[in-house]
Amino acid sequence: MKKIVVIGGSAAGAKAASKARRLDEFADITIIQKSPELSMAACGYPYYIGGVFNDRRQLLCTPAGVIRDPTFFQKAKNIKALVETEVRAIDRNARQVHCRDLKNGTEQTIAYDRLVIATGAVAVKPPIPGINLAGITTLLTMADTDYLRAVRDAGEVKNAVIVGGGLIGVEVCEALQSSGIQVTLVEAMDQVLNFLDWDLAKLVENHMRSQGAQVLTGVGVSAFIGDNGRLTGVQLADGKTIDCGLAVLAVGVRPNSGLAREAGLSIGECGGITVNQYLQTSDPAIYAAGDCTEIPSRITRKPVFAPMGDLANLAGRVVGENIVVGNTVTFPGTAHTAICKVFQFTAGSTGLSEQAAEKSGLRNYTTVVNASPDKPGFMGARILISKLLVDEHQQILGYQCVGLGDVSRQIATAAMAVQAKLTLAETVHADLPYAPPFSPAIDHFITAGHIMENKLQGRMTGIRVREVWEKLQAGEKLFLLDGRNPDEYEEMHLGVGEHLIPLGTLRSRLDELPADKAAEIICFCKISLRGYEVECILRAHGYTNVKVMEGGIVAWPYPRKR
Amino acid sequence: MKKIVVIGGSAAGAKAASKARRLDEFADITIIQKSPELSMAACGYPYYIGGVFNDRRQLLCTPAGVIRDPTFFQKAKNIKALVETEVRAIDRNARQVHCRDLKNGTEQTIAYDRLVIATGAVAVKPPIPGINLAGITTLLTMADTDYLRAVRDAGEVKNAVIVGGGLIGVEVCEALQSSGIQVTLVEAMDQVLNFLDWDLAKLVENHMRSQGAQVLTGVGVSAFIGDNGRLTGVQLADGKTIDCGLAVLAVGVRPNSGLAREAGLSIGECGGITVNQYLQTSDPAIYAAGDCTEIPSRITRKPVFAPMGDLANLAGRVVGENIVVGNTVTFPGTAHTAICKVFQFTAGSTGLSEQAAEKSGLRNYTTVVNASPDKPGFMGARILISKLLVDEHQQILGYQCVGLGDVSRQIATAAMAVQAKLTLAETVHADLPYAPPFSPAIDHFITAGHIMENKLQGRMTGIRVREVWEKLQAGEKLFLLDGRNPDEYEEMHLGVGEHLIPLGTLRSRLDELPADKAAEIICFCKISLRGYEVECILRAHGYTNVKVMEGGIVAWPYPRKR
Repeated sequence: MKKIVVIGGSAAGAKAASKARRLDEFADITIIQKSPELSMAACGYPYYIGGVFNDRRQLLCTPAGVIRDPTFFQKAKNIKALVETEVRAIDRNARQVHCRDLKNGTEQTIAYDRLVIATGAVAVKPPIPGINLAGITTLLTMADTDYLRAVRDAGEVKNAVIVGGGLIGVEVCEALQSSGIQVTLVEAMDQVLNFLDWDLAKLVENHMRSQGAQVLTGVGVSAFIGDNGRLTGVQLADGKTIDCGLAVLAVGVRPNSGLAREAGLSIGECGGITVNQYLQTSDPAIYAAGDCTEIPSRITRKPVFAPMGDLANLAGRVVGENIVVGNTVTFPGTAHTAICKVFQFTAGSTGLSEQAAEKSGLRNYTTVVNASPDKPGFMGARILISKLLVDEHQQILGYQCVGLGDVSRQIATAAMAVQAKLTLAETVHADLPYAPPFSPAIDHFITAGHIMENKLQGRMTGIRVREVWEKLQAGEKLFLLDGRNPDEYEEMHLGVGEHLIPLGTLRSRLDELPADKAAEIICFCKISLRGYEVECILRAHGYTNVKVMEGGIVAWPYPRKR
Repeated sequence: MKKIVVIGGSAAGAKAASKARRLDEFADITIIQKSPELSMAACGYPYYIGGVFNDRRQLLCTPAGVIRDPTFFQKAKNIKALVETEVRAIDRNARQVHCRDLKNGTEQTIAYDRLVIATGAVAVKPPIPGINLAGITTLLTMADTDYLRAVRDAGEVKNAVIVGGGLIGVEVCEALQSSGIQVTLVEAMDQVLNFLDWDLAKLVENHMRSQGAQVLTGVGVSAFIGDNGRLTGVQLADGKTIDCGLAVLAVGVRPNSGLAREAGLSIGECGGITVNQYLQTSDPAIYAAGDCTEIPSRITRKPVFAPMGDLANLAGRVVGENIVVGNTVTFPGTAHTAICKVFQFTAGSTGLSEQAAEKSGLRNYTTVVNASPDKPGFMGARILISKLLVDEHQQILGYQCVGLGDVSRQIATAAMAVQAKLTLAETVHADLPYAPPFSPAIDHFITAGHIMENKLQGRMTGIRVREVWEKLQAGEKLFLLDGRNPDEYEEMHLGVGEHLIPLGTLRSRLDELPADKAAEIICFCKISLRGYEVECILRAHGYTNVKVMEGGIVAWPYPRKR
């Protein structure tokens, strides 16, 4: 009878144990879990905190409504789950773990044939003065969740500061702001959600502001201010202070790999446990899965830290199989796919962003920004703004998308393209599910591909909104051409000195353009589709320095008129 | 100056002309369109008929709200659009088309260097007695749409019959039923939506019934009954009659390829114009795109008739490029992707269904049915039921999905897998966008892959609901084991003599199973996830003939208790 011990009973650990049981009815399987709960739906914490649902049990129960407690694991899966029990050390020579019951202090030693480490992540706590004041929390555990939900329910805190604008920071921002607490999110980097590039992240920040949240980027927190041991405010690096009764530290997590390190297992450069393709550690009897490990990027092949719930579950399943039947299943790693609800917006990404490509040393890539609807106008279209990256072989490197519309389908589609290493030519005629309730006749992702084709073939010259803005700030002489109709212009326009020449009148109004055919002309419209048609016409008429402002007005994150 | 003539100004034709213009500002481009409208959003007709939106102009206008009439085409695109003008003949030797203005009867001849045929499809009208009675219509044109919308708005028709349960039939069924008209849909085949297999189609039909529509399958219409030239009812092949003041013929469309045939162009076995990979017909000066053509299946490589709006748009764009810059872009064909809203359900498919695989002569494929939620329970999970097909090399052949949840993302994901010719192993660890508002930690599509793996590795033996039903009808001795809890059983159960043994009690109740370890035992639960766990336990305890009823209770289309 094989003895399997699993350290950690959240996503990866519980999955590994359950899969092992299905493959071996008679193995002796033990989960050792430090917290009182098992199989927590940790990604759901922000939604419970924000009141999207109110039954805490739902974070812990099966679809049939049964709490996944030790009794459930015993009865349904014949797995012994020791909760509130901490593993103190792994004795690799003796193949034993030493653990302690946190409730009563008793210690015991448990032998294993195969050990699984699934100890997850720990929240980063930077050494900021005042960090231990009451009223400051992270959001990693059920206990953190219970605390934040209690703060919400008590209704006494009127102002909160979120420190950090990653996934958790943004999700908690929505949860608290939607609960009637005035939230200020402070991010030291110059943007939120670093899986997005700056240009798309700024659109997300604007949306967060439109929903009432304050978003400050490019400024760090220098101190937490307190009174009588309780938080009363946050001091920023720029000298400003924000009064608040609650602060949520969301500056990231790191692999909880200390136990493995102490046991002498190999630890990688990201601080995660090193695993091979079978998710086996440097000790063949020990496997690891989830946030405590580092895994390969499917794009760059380099090891990365990818603390994502879906990957933890998939990896746990792989481990469950390999510990029972031997190394048969390989885990390919992460494609850097992420998605996040941000109030009415959704923001998602797969593959490499431009920033990530730069960081990986890739240079010969091309990007385009595409703004276009997620379905036909008559079905209540909502604009999506996306960015596509291809490498020098025109292979799809990455895709990001934000907006009010169906981002989830966009990212799922692109994630498959990225993972299948498809080229642009292999995606632009993809036969995707089309009917008016679900997409426009030409899907938004395919439209992004079409724009990329135009750009790579030299039919379109793009310019980023940021570059246009910087040129304007520098006082450069530009001829900005808005190709829309007067009524559209009235409704919304940039107000940066642009000329309104509706596309339908352009051919008869070429005399209003600069006499110098080499003058820089920047064309756009709401989404820059007509902007591109304007470019085609002007080029044909001999203008040599015409550019399309990619994404058009809806991709413009700066102040605009109306 | 290149002379381009496009016959047909709906999806493919308008797209080809517009793309050609962007690539050649000075070409002479003419669209000849039989109907008064141009660039109609034909896939939107059912939603206008059903009152999802009420402004007819929205079917015809740009996102900026401008009607795409001849003035628009002239001004914005410098394209001459002749509407209500019919092409009578193509003179290939002289490179001319002869056409007639249907408003005043004047005829003219227009020369071309490149001709595009985009004449679309015509509705099949079977020779049923009474078919010309007033009150019977197809749904293909704006005129049909206006008629049906007027019937809806008049509110006089109380009962309608839809003849045909394809995409259009089902969409019109929803439109009319939602408008307060009692609809009976009659389909001669034994299921609706033939892009689905029978087992999933039956679930769609049950949903349609739950929304008030009558659905009759396996019975044809033998006659339309009239009074004074007006429809009063429909007589079915089984002798029954249905009173109705409206009948919609939706028994399919065929390629409108008569003009091409008369011009001596090659026509394929599906009746569509034959085109090469550049969408060029048998005459190199003539291209064709959209519903009038037949195109290759990306799966079987055989030519098929695929009258889909998205493919027409993509093909039109390819033609627009090839007629201007020479044959540079190839069109890969269809992956058989389809999606359809059916009241609260969505039904979609990509690649081959089991029926389509059989029809194509493929035999060595494996299927699984997966029922599981589209997101976590606490986010308002809705069950999806899907069916995955892989071939003998474990390449993904096809995927269908129906249910209340997000089917669109499912089919988009699978469509990319099918088109990239990914294998099961390449999809089961796909890094898809996960956050609780969008999916469960392990995506439904990946779960289908996991079940397939279990099946192919001999860890799970599946049995279809239909097979279980047929065994029960034949009086076979089966031990049906429902592995749920008593409260779940009370809420809903099959009531076919099954034994309730909750999974959590099973290991201590093995003595309640048949003494004969070779007895046929069929395990299930609501979605057959616990059904599978039951199978694992029973097999380990020596039972040799254990099967899992795939999809569980939610995939059971037959009457059940509660």
